[in-house]
Amino acid sequence: MRKDLRNLKYVFNPKSIAVIGASENPDKLGNVILKNLVDGGYEGKIYPVNPKYEELLGHKCYPKVGSIKKHVDLAIFAVPAPIIPKLAEECGKNGVKGIVVLSAGFGETGKTKLEEKLGKIVLKHGMAMIGPNCLGVMNPEKRVDSIFFPFYKSGRPRVGEISLITQSGAVGTCIADLASYYNVGFSKFVSYGNATTISESDLLEHLGKDSKTKQILLYLEGTKDGKKLLGALEKVNPKKPVIALKAGKSRAAGEAAKSHTGNLAGNYLAYQAAFRESKVIEVDSVVELFYVANMFSQARPKGKRVGVLTDGGGLGVLTADAIEECGMELAEFSKKTSKKLRKSLPHYVNITNPLDIVADSGTDAYRKAIRAMMEDSSIDSIVVIVLFQAPAVDSRIIDVLVKESDRRKKPVVVVAVGGEYTKENRRVLDSYGVPTYGSPDAAIKTLKKFTEYSLFHKKKK
Amino acid sequence: MRKDLRNLKYVFNPKSIAVIGASENPDKLGNVILKNLVDGGYEGKIYPVNPKYEELLGHKCYPKVGSIKKHVDLAIFAVPAPIIPKLAEECGKNGVKGIVVLSAGFGETGKTKLEEKLGKIVLKHGMAMIGPNCLGVMNPEKRVDSIFFPFYKSGRPRVGEISLITQSGAVGTCIADLASYYNVGFSKFVSYGNATTISESDLLEHLGKDSKTKQILLYLEGTKDGKKLLGALEKVNPKKPVIALKAGKSRAAGEAAKSHTGNLAGNYLAYQAAFRESKVIEVDSVVELFYVANMFSQARPKGKRVGVLTDGGGLGVLTADAIEECGMELAEFSKKTSKKLRKSLPHYVNITNPLDIVADSGTDAYRKAIRAMMEDSSIDSIVVIVLFQAPAVDSRIIDVLVKESDRRKKPVVVVAVGGEYTKENRRVLDSYGVPTYGSPDAAIKTLKKFTEYSLFHKKKK
Repeated sequence: MRKDLRNLKYVFNPKSIAVIGASENPDKLGNVILKNLVDGGYEGKIYPVNPKYEELLGHKCYPKVGSIKKHVDLAIFAVPAPIIPKLAEECGKNGVKGIVVLSAGFGETGKTKLEEKLGKIVLKHGMAMIGPNCLGVMNPEKRVDSIFFPFYKSGRPRVGEISLITQSGAVGTCIADLASYYNVGFSKFVSYGNATTISESDLLEHLGKDSKTKQILLYLEGTKDGKKLLGALEKVNPKKPVIALKAGKSRAAGEAAKSHTGNLAGNYLAYQAAFRESKVIEVDSVVELFYVANMFSQARPKGKRVGVLTDGGGLGVLTADAIEECGMELAEFSKKTSKKLRKSLPHYVNITNPLDIVADSGTDAYRKAIRAMMEDSSIDSIVVIVLFQAPAVDSRIIDVLVKESDRRKKPVVVVAVGGEYTKENRRVLDSYGVPTYGSPDAAIKTLKKFTEYSLFHKKKK
Repeated sequence: MRKDLRNLKYVFNPKSIAVIGASENPDKLGNVILKNLVDGGYEGKIYPVNPKYEELLGHKCYPKVGSIKKHVDLAIFAVPAPIIPKLAEECGKNGVKGIVVLSAGFGETGKTKLEEKLGKIVLKHGMAMIGPNCLGVMNPEKRVDSIFFPFYKSGRPRVGEISLITQSGAVGTCIADLASYYNVGFSKFVSYGNATTISESDLLEHLGKDSKTKQILLYLEGTKDGKKLLGALEKVNPKKPVIALKAGKSRAAGEAAKSHTGNLAGNYLAYQAAFRESKVIEVDSVVELFYVANMFSQARPKGKRVGVLTDGGGLGVLTADAIEECGMELAEFSKKTSKKLRKSLPHYVNITNPLDIVADSGTDAYRKAIRAMMEDSSIDSIVVIVLFQAPAVDSRIIDVLVKESDRRKKPVVVVAVGGEYTKENRRVLDSYGVPTYGSPDAAIKTLKKFTEYSLFHKKKK
């Protein structure tokens, strides 16, 4: 195995970080990154590097990496592209294990020679390099964070099981920010930009072996080695679900992708074939990438039969539509379940799927209905629609949903459409591991992908 | 014209409202409705009706409608179904012009005779009846509000130009709540439930003539008179865009719809044909209903060519994908525009569409780029992607977007994906009439429908 790939572990779990180009000017990247490490509570050693300063944010500042005189695991570069090869050389000579190069101005702007030169230097020293032209890495558990976006603008996810590999920093940020908003946890985040020496495939294999990563999200515009990517997907996906979004599908978008990270987007059909062959879950949008990952907190469904519970009739009808349209199935309640529901629910409730307990039923009816559906083996997954606006629904519903959704048995997902009050309740549910969706079609489309993955990998066993 | 249809105006603009079944018990509908009228600031006369009380929420309470002795325009019923025909008869005798029957327990639960009886009574007296089994009406301008959902759970939209006709109260609530969250204005809201005497077609024609309604949203499960519906759509849609969502498309969903409002969902293909024939904008989901309506605040595009501006490369690539996939076109900048952009934007910006001004450019680059695109006649609409997380973007961007988007010239829509900070900024933009979307595909799909409607109605002139 290449030495730089072995050193990838130091990029995600460094014991010490040097910030090359650290600054006291809040408009500079080198300031935001240093501040984020300090404020974010990174517990390893922090070494600001800049000949201009003696001290920055309470940390001694060094004129160059060579003058630190202590071991440096990771160096984060926030300096102009042209001077980076020289500084990287110095890092290599001083035993730095990994570098993150945030700066743009390499292959994506035509400076391919500069990029090649940098690549040779890092490989010579066996340094793991992320970038250039990227946001770098984040590891919430270790508070490693090279994202140069301020905390107040871009939330950081809590510690969790999802890892994200993204070619676009912007897309990565959007997903991490959404995850933070819904309190969904992340294990590792890596925005790899131009992928000069370490590619998406290398990162897939690395995180495939990472014990703290349970699902992997992949945002991809283009790869330099399609065969290697297919190999990595086939190796990793059966063990850990990979959820992929390919951008630059169309001709025009492909050109945009090229000027973005300097990579050819290639023929989309080839990617699609690779995703199908490796049974990777392919999604169509940024938010869907997040939606699908979030559903993996649930038990894997054993089939396509969906039970639907609602306190708003129209939303039940729309959910039934979505289920039939996308090839899932509306479950038929077993006789036992029907009897149980008839006995325990108010007389005006029709015992049928979707089960509409109507707006006045409230928390208790939800509890009874979920419990009955949970025990019915003719139901594979449960979609619970909550009209939080209804007077009979109060916040105890959250307690019921969290308690009754037995994550070892079958998945429970929640649909709630609305404004402030609804969104706040959704966030609470998500933070307790009950995935919520803002529309019936989003929930069902996601459930379908989750179910397909689960059924394929069940069959294989 | 039927007398009850003429009296519809009193339902939306009553000078006095009686609440039949008003209560001091906060768990009762009759309490929530009375409270909402009082707290919501309804300026007409309010008459609580309930023999149990002398006074409720500071208003004299009457034992029955007959004892009010003053003119009552609208009576809202929050009492059990069986006693409603008798009370409606009394309303009729006392000159009430319209009634809203919120109560369920009619045709949708098999009590068709009770519903027929009620229908005959209201027609005999020429009273306009909304319902039964509905949420009734809302007119933000007049603070008329029969929605029995508390304010803190379900936001009420501000005064605006969108009217909503919905068969499902739950779906209507979700849309109104979303509108309130994004500060998008509404003119009238009507949840018509079982449509015993007044149907969706009657409401379409009524609001088609309402000078304060500029767009109409229609959520429909089934109609009793398809021919009449087609006629109403053909009449209204060319003057005021109608945006329709048909639920109960599939067999199973159709059955759910029947037990919901007692109406057959019918064959979806017939509805689809009617929507096509009348050139109504058909949407696929609740949120899309809201999305499309929101875009009508913008100028109508003259063609399909979209200019894309972004500070996050990956989001630009995804937007280009969405444009090509749905049959819109990526505009080609005119030579003049390209020159202007080359001159005014930083050297590292590639002058191409999507125009990626990258994360460090900020507000000033946005202003220049939007201005140039606004003047380029080879661009029909502008999609501005804002990565609010980027350090260079500050809240001045909102000022630029509001000022530079000239709503007489061409539409400008904003895409912003992310958590708390991003969502708050989106809300501000929406409240200034710049429509925002949480993902590129949602924005482009909406823009496509908006463009199609605009082009069809341009051609006709």
